[in-house]
Amino acid sequence: MAIITFMSDFGMSDHYVSAVKAKILSTNPSLRIIDISHEIEPYNIAHAAYVLKHVYKDFPKGTIHMVAVNSHGEKNKRYLCFKIDDHFFLGPDNGIFSLVCQSEPSMIAELFNSENDNTCFPAKDILAKNAALIASGSSMNDIGAFTKDYLQKIDRKFRATKKQISGNVIKVDYYGNLISNIEEEVFNVLRKDRKFLIQFGREKMDKINISYNEVDDGDCFAIFNSLGLLEIGINKGNAFRLLGLKYDSAVSIIFEDSTK
Amino acid sequence: MAIITFMSDFGMSDHYVSAVKAKILSTNPSLRIIDISHEIEPYNIAHAAYVLKHVYKDFPKGTIHMVAVNSHGEKNKRYLCFKIDDHFFLGPDNGIFSLVCQSEPSMIAELFNSENDNTCFPAKDILAKNAALIASGSSMNDIGAFTKDYLQKIDRKFRATKKQISGNVIKVDYYGNLISNIEEEVFNVLRKDRKFLIQFGREKMDKINISYNEVDDGDCFAIFNSLGLLEIGINKGNAFRLLGLKYDSAVSIIFEDSTK
Amino acid sequence: MAIITFMSDFGMSDHYVSAVKAKILSTNPSLRIIDISHEIEPYNIAHAAYVLKHVYKDFPKGTIHMVAVNSHGEKNKRYLCFKIDDHFFLGPDNGIFSLVCQSEPSMIAELFNSENDNTCFPAKDILAKNAALIASGSSMNDIGAFTKDYLQKIDRKFRATKKQISGNVIKVDYYGNLISNIEEEVFNVLRKDRKFLIQFGREKMDKINISYNEVDDGDCFAIFNSLGLLEIGINKGNAFRLLGLKYDSAVSIIFEDSTK
Repeated sequence: MAIITFMSDFGMSDHYVSAVKAKILSTNPSLRIIDISHEIEPYNIAHAAYVLKHVYKDFPKGTIHMVAVNSHGEKNKRYLCFKIDDHFFLGPDNGIFSLVCQSEPSMIAELFNSENDNTCFPAKDILAKNAALIASGSSMNDIGAFTKDYLQKIDRKFRATKKQISGNVIKVDYYGNLISNIEEEVFNVLRKDRKFLIQFGREKMDKINISYNEVDDGDCFAIFNSLGLLEIGINKGNAFRLLGLKYDSAVSIIFEDSTK
Repeated sequence: MAIITFMSDFGMSDHYVSAVKAKILSTNPSLRIIDISHEIEPYNIAHAAYVLKHVYKDFPKGTIHMVAVNSHGEKNKRYLCFKIDDHFFLGPDNGIFSLVCQSEPSMIAELFNSENDNTCFPAKDILAKNAALIASGSSMNDIGAFTKDYLQKIDRKFRATKKQISGNVIKVDYYGNLISNIEEEVFNVLRKDRKFLIQFGREKMDKINISYNEVDDGDCFAIFNSLGLLEIGINKGNAFRLLGLKYDSAVSIIFEDSTK
Repeated sequence: MAIITFMSDFGMSDHYVSAVKAKILSTNPSLRIIDISHEIEPYNIAHAAYVLKHVYKDFPKGTIHMVAVNSHGEKNKRYLCFKIDDHFFLGPDNGIFSLVCQSEPSMIAELFNSENDNTCFPAKDILAKNAALIASGSSMNDIGAFTKDYLQKIDRKFRATKKQISGNVIKVDYYGNLISNIEEEVFNVLRKDRKFLIQFGREKMDKINISYNEVDDGDCFAIFNSLGLLEIGINKGNAFRLLGLKYDSAVSIIFEDSTK
């Protein structure tokens, strides 16, 4: 039996999260639901996409990922099921899954929605029911009509030249670490053994650390993290509060001029 | 095997929630526990009742709902198990279940409590143990003595005349939406095709919206929500912060004088 | 199949918690994971130890307790599995389990870590994988090399004489109750029917209460709680905010001079 993951911007102080779970369990009491997070910032699709992007592949193939972020905020009222990389994704047609997955969807179905045309709680009435059906063995054409039409969004990308990589902070995590969109792979290709300076806010560093604990408590580190992204932080401190950087702040790596 | 739901005002930074779950699993390791919320405002029975009222029926019949809100705050030290609408409810005798369910209980048992007369952790020592027994197939007279005596509380109700429905905000949800006790059914019966004005704080609206996204971002909406209650909010905004309304604030609907 | 418990300082707004769970479920999809808390204060080993100490024994013997608090903050980069009291404990070699358990470990293994020597996410790459193996029936020498070497830490203890017990606040819980390290057993042995004064901040009390609700709302109580520790609080109030005490504040019990 496939696992259903569940991510939302519902918080945990209302009945919304448990109502969705109750709907899944009423459809099939043996299903297994794993919470990704219900503390996604309200309406923030970028936050939701970042979190899901970096965890969905850790789940077994066939897992159903249900996302209810800004779930009734879309005027088109379309709810989609994507099959990508042998994972299923269910959510409103708001572009989130184009931010989550690099690969093209192999199938897309627009969920049938005849009985609940004007539901005020689509996460329960539409997403939960259909996630439970897929997890119980239904195929995509049992729950929707195939389509090729869906909203696509594009991530903010770094810019790279031979001299410099310019990126941005794309996530401030729970510890206050600043995660940028600068990729380790690109850095390795461009560097060619040259010295370099990492610049962010008023700080400069000339070194990439190997581990978080390589620097003393309270000192700055720069590391390519488990996602392969440049992450800046303060060992046992909060870089977000102390460095004055935040979501979208500039981070760049400038290579030494090798012709000098 | 029946599901156990668990709601408390314990928060998640202490050992209280997991100690209760450990007790259930030690009694029967195959039981399934679904968290409703552990972020109920401390001691706030109205908050707890609101959340449980709007989700319990979504669970399969036979589900056991365990509520540990203000769980050692009652001087009578009675702990009850109710059977209502084919669901079981376990909690202190503090009136909460009379707020949750419209129907009369079909059975009430006062939980046996001989070994733990002075327990400081009744949610674990009394509620968890007995919830696990019921979920494992015990009957109510195995775990307590039948009684008819329990504390009842009465919800604040709206008042309705031919001219006006006057209600209150009964919940501010995670998004800052203001949920009132004005019911869609009553509105439909009284309206008789007349125009109307919704009044709350300094605002007036002359329309009920069909969906949250019918208004532009930042504009006010009024909707009968998935619970059939009048809900006021700001699309992608926080009505609680922006409108100056809060728990208990007045909301009314005034009908146009049809004799004019 | 053994239960895995999971405690961390990861918070719930990132992908960290679910990535660890995904790793466990990818190793063995039938495993059961119970969250202890992910709201441990970042890097705070004392907080983590307090919570785990007071709940681990409630779980069935054979349970695997996985702790990812300050999980990449240790320079030794050792990750250990302890067997203590027939429970398993997995975490970094940071001294936490010497604070959790009174008993000596019956076995300690240093986890094999060849493939992930420089992992930036040891909770997922090292702890989750090995917790899943133990829960699936592997023995400790399948996952690591036996060792006797581990970091030990020592709890701050109360001091006791015939005249006085002097302790400290070791935990402020979610309700603002102040839990001290003064033990009921020691109090009972030393008291010998004498009168006594409990002193904390500017307050004095000459009585231990039997239950939280023995005093009126808003009044101070002192109770030996379900852990056998002296706990001071305000019924339906927040002692932390109102009494000016905090973590480490002094609490003492002074016995009446019986020679007078």
